[in-house]
Amino acid sequence: MEMHTYTTGKLLEQVDIPEDLRKKISEDELPQFCSELRDFIIDVVSQKGGHFSASLGVVELTVALHYVFNTPHDKLVWDVGHQAYGHKILTGRRKVFHTNRSYKGISGFPKPTESEYDAFAVGHSSTSISAALGMAVASRVQKEERQHIAIIGDGSMTAGLAFEGLNQGGVENTNLLVILNDNCMAIDPNVGALKEYLTDITTSHTYNKVKDEVWNLLGKISKFGPNAQQIAQKIENGIKATLLKQSNLFESLNFRYFGPIDGHDVIHLTKVLNDLKDIPGPKILHCITEKGKGYKPAEEGDTAKWHAPGLFNKETGEIIKITPNSPEPPKFQDVFGHTIVELAEKNDKIVGITPAMPSGCSLNIMMKAMPDRAFDVGIAEQHAVTFSAGMASQGLIPFCNIYSSFMQRAYDQVIHDVALQNLQVVFCLDRGGLVGADGATHHGAYDLAYFRCIPNMIVSAPLDEEELRNLMFTAQAENYGPFSIRFPRGNGSIVDWKTPFKKLKIGEGRRLKSGSDIAILSIGAIGTEVTKAIETLENSGISIAHYDMRFVKPIDELLLHEVFTKFNKVITVEDGCIQGGMGSAVIEFMVDNNYQANVKRLGIPDKFIEHGTQDELYEECFYNSKAVIQTATQLMQKSASNKATA
Amino acid sequence: MEMHTYTTGKLLEQVDIPEDLRKKISEDELPQFCSELRDFIIDVVSQKGGHFSASLGVVELTVALHYVFNTPHDKLVWDVGHQAYGHKILTGRRKVFHTNRSYKGISGFPKPTESEYDAFAVGHSSTSISAALGMAVASRVQKEERQHIAIIGDGSMTAGLAFEGLNQGGVENTNLLVILNDNCMAIDPNVGALKEYLTDITTSHTYNKVKDEVWNLLGKISKFGPNAQQIAQKIENGIKATLLKQSNLFESLNFRYFGPIDGHDVIHLTKVLNDLKDIPGPKILHCITEKGKGYKPAEEGDTAKWHAPGLFNKETGEIIKITPNSPEPPKFQDVFGHTIVELAEKNDKIVGITPAMPSGCSLNIMMKAMPDRAFDVGIAEQHAVTFSAGMASQGLIPFCNIYSSFMQRAYDQVIHDVALQNLQVVFCLDRGGLVGADGATHHGAYDLAYFRCIPNMIVSAPLDEEELRNLMFTAQAENYGPFSIRFPRGNGSIVDWKTPFKKLKIGEGRRLKSGSDIAILSIGAIGTEVTKAIETLENSGISIAHYDMRFVKPIDELLLHEVFTKFNKVITVEDGCIQGGMGSAVIEFMVDNNYQANVKRLGIPDKFIEHGTQDELYEECFYNSKAVIQTATQLMQKSASNKATA
Repeated sequence: MEMHTYTTGKLLEQVDIPEDLRKKISEDELPQFCSELRDFIIDVVSQKGGHFSASLGVVELTVALHYVFNTPHDKLVWDVGHQAYGHKILTGRRKVFHTNRSYKGISGFPKPTESEYDAFAVGHSSTSISAALGMAVASRVQKEERQHIAIIGDGSMTAGLAFEGLNQGGVENTNLLVILNDNCMAIDPNVGALKEYLTDITTSHTYNKVKDEVWNLLGKISKFGPNAQQIAQKIENGIKATLLKQSNLFESLNFRYFGPIDGHDVIHLTKVLNDLKDIPGPKILHCITEKGKGYKPAEEGDTAKWHAPGLFNKETGEIIKITPNSPEPPKFQDVFGHTIVELAEKNDKIVGITPAMPSGCSLNIMMKAMPDRAFDVGIAEQHAVTFSAGMASQGLIPFCNIYSSFMQRAYDQVIHDVALQNLQVVFCLDRGGLVGADGATHHGAYDLAYFRCIPNMIVSAPLDEEELRNLMFTAQAENYGPFSIRFPRGNGSIVDWKTPFKKLKIGEGRRLKSGSDIAILSIGAIGTEVTKAIETLENSGISIAHYDMRFVKPIDELLLHEVFTKFNKVITVEDGCIQGGMGSAVIEFMVDNNYQANVKRLGIPDKFIEHGTQDELYEECFYNSKAVIQTATQLMQKSASNKATA
Repeated sequence: MEMHTYTTGKLLEQVDIPEDLRKKISEDELPQFCSELRDFIIDVVSQKGGHFSASLGVVELTVALHYVFNTPHDKLVWDVGHQAYGHKILTGRRKVFHTNRSYKGISGFPKPTESEYDAFAVGHSSTSISAALGMAVASRVQKEERQHIAIIGDGSMTAGLAFEGLNQGGVENTNLLVILNDNCMAIDPNVGALKEYLTDITTSHTYNKVKDEVWNLLGKISKFGPNAQQIAQKIENGIKATLLKQSNLFESLNFRYFGPIDGHDVIHLTKVLNDLKDIPGPKILHCITEKGKGYKPAEEGDTAKWHAPGLFNKETGEIIKITPNSPEPPKFQDVFGHTIVELAEKNDKIVGITPAMPSGCSLNIMMKAMPDRAFDVGIAEQHAVTFSAGMASQGLIPFCNIYSSFMQRAYDQVIHDVALQNLQVVFCLDRGGLVGADGATHHGAYDLAYFRCIPNMIVSAPLDEEELRNLMFTAQAENYGPFSIRFPRGNGSIVDWKTPFKKLKIGEGRRLKSGSDIAILSIGAIGTEVTKAIETLENSGISIAHYDMRFVKPIDELLLHEVFTKFNKVITVEDGCIQGGMGSAVIEFMVDNNYQANVKRLGIPDKFIEHGTQDELYEECFYNSKAVIQTATQLMQKSASNKATA
């Protein structure tokens, strides 16, 4: 593996694993140690990219946790995990940290197969409380002495799963410690009642409020002499005891609440964590932190931008943009973001919904343009869908944008609340297919398969920006019931993308190119790989017909009759799992209609795919243009050799 | 439709729709009206079956809601919906109520296609807040004056979706009213910290607690004269204001909290609801009710039993049991319940988890036998799975039992928290396939398809009790990673079910019968329909080979090579959706391996299936023995006619 040298301070240099930290670094050196760790993160991420400000925000917390707890024996469960860079650097991965998120390099998220210090694999939010509780109960059942700590952001705390974990956690007799890393942010600013509540207890803590009020009044009692003062003191103590037990949301759920405390004071943090180690039962420590802490441009700049800024000049804070030689096609997400506004201007039934991804899915464009009709509901995919269903039941047309892999969170709501009532909710699944550097947790591999089996559901995927616009236009032009449109992470293929709208016929694909030897059926943007392959193939004398299916469901039966009547060699290509996906729909049709053909299905194989660039992963998964060429060539050779032996 | 006469009181008789109630029934007649409605429910349900005690518990609430609100213009959103019998009877369905849950009769749950008074279709829990909020926001966007009321039980309130709804509801400017129907129950007793909190504020309301304490102390101040008394008064007012705003969990989330009030005092309820109509913003009314209220045996008996007691003698409360002439095969769920205890006695790594279905899935047997190792986590499917993953990560072997249709709630957790880490969690999916009277929301139609596309996942289904036991034994005998075992609602086929354990080979099916004309491949208990069909078919001279696949994934490739080598006519039979299910796996194999055969796939077609008995629905969906016979016969005829014309 290529070796790099990054700014490694003299304290950081001594620490390969947390035991070094505990043995070699004295308490008063901790602030300096944190500073060196922070510099290291800034140095590497500025040159190599990745998530940024979340990890900077938990530098002190990370150091304090490994300093106080006996990791890996004690279990640290990081929520989401994109903030665990400091943790990775302290747990044996400093020297390979520059390979973060690159193909065959270390993962951008905690991963138990990578390190024994990564207690639980993660990438999606809000799993940490449930997972850590499961570990704590396991320790109890197996009679092991161990500490269990979940570190969760206030954004992740809005998801139902976190609440479900608290609900059981409050009544289980375990030592579970939940650290609430409160920076008022998800990727975008956190929203909802819980966030307002946290702000409220932080800025003017309930107890303090009451205490002030009481003192203010009790002060007046003191003029009645020392007896009255004693009584006043008693009153205060009584109120305090009751309030601390009752006034707090977490105390309501039977968690002992501590805080809020400054999450950037590492020495105070170690003291508090040491104290909490000895307090039995479920407890929550509320830490106030700042995303991007310690790096001025991130502290002061646009927080969403600094979540994962790409490469930047660490001295100036300037984000490095490679200026293309010619205009580039837009990101699919931006085509979505602009198009929904364009449609909503003409159709006042349209509303937009995102669960905490306004900048990630570009719904922020609509939130700015028409704030009354665009909703960021927080990290709450289930609610996003049922909320959309409620709106659709009253005649609105919600465009609910959820990343494909996060849509897994709302699967029941799609079936039970939308499809069953045949409601007109338009699901826009961004990040469909392999997403690249975020890796296994984030690949949108399954949606074509898991949506295809739902009755009433229209399942579509555009080849390019024009098609995305036309599908969005079609979905709102008439009430077709639930309508899903999935598109990949990254850029499309058309520079002049703002094409006039055209209404498509539901379930109608199209022949992009005629040919005579092999039919290739593709769905979605991966079809551009087929187009590339065709040039090479035609040069080798293989004549290819290319069909863009557009819809996986309903599938274009006329088109398929044409294909199976004309061709006995068929290739299907999809940026999705091959079990149960578009290719399976095609062969289901073929078998149901008694056609016979040699069909090769290309798509994501039956395993979890790690991180890398999208191109690297398409290659690995064998459905890029090279794979199409190879498959087509083999089909022809086989056919020739069959004829030869016949 | 057959007409029946049930005890209909003289007030109830006058009410066909809520407008009648509002016009014809005076306020002081409401208690009598409620009594008549209750008698009607008891009369019909005792003779026709269905859900029982939940509807009795909300009789007064139902009447008060329709009395005060202008339904259907105002929107009532019932959570779960099995408590909506009173609502159905008051909204035009009294005369057909005896058809409840029977084939082609009315649904046991609210259903907008059945009545305009059913604002939202439901069956799964905890959707009401999100749906009603969506409606309320839709009214705001569309500038309509309307009230929106979600009626949700304390059991449903534990699910994350409900919390997600509250989190947005607290900051949306709507008139949303959440009625918390608090009976300390889901189907089984409610569990968790929230339930304890609700009990706490009910039995000794926070404000009262503090007030008493303060008064107790302030009393002593009075001896200092009238000035001191005034000060004491001021202190109390200050505390009260702060507390009411801050001390309540719901107030923390910015809902105005009212209650608790007696949910069986119909006149008081109407007054309170009338007052709440005029209070803007999100609010929650906490009503204390009793499941089974007004029917002594249900009030005093086993609450889980009276949730859906079947037929009973309404005079004596005796549940009518039809004594079979000979011993009957057990329910699959009981085989699960007894077998897990048997296995856990020998393997101390085994733990059991259910999200609020201990009596429904028979984990209550283990909860009684080994309470430290069996967990009811409340209505919280997502948490149930991630909690199981946490335990599995520490070496335990969780058997997580979730109904197939509820497993849809935890789809992401299965992928992201279990399969991705290849953890040994055994998913026991009860109610796989068509479930009967509960209908569309509860059919376990999709699990084979939605699990089959997940890497690392073993997908199995037993033919009978012996196979269920062997699959459960196998799943814990060695670490195979995630292992799902799905079985249907109802009884198996073996009377002497407690057979010795046998370890199965992963992915190995079996040939139940040899034959020469047609191969029939079945998965799961529906295979018994194939066995029945074979007798008739063989009598007609058609020779059938019957294969029990046992595993959908990994699928038995050796077996399939045998099948496709020997047969060119194949039928697949599954109690699951035909898109992407077992039959699709079979034809994927066939096409990948260049076999050619005429394959007919039988299973649940691509539409939502309503309620009825399981046998009625198998018939409708065309995969019972009759369907198998017909399909096989047609295959033979076609083949004969092909030969004739060839």
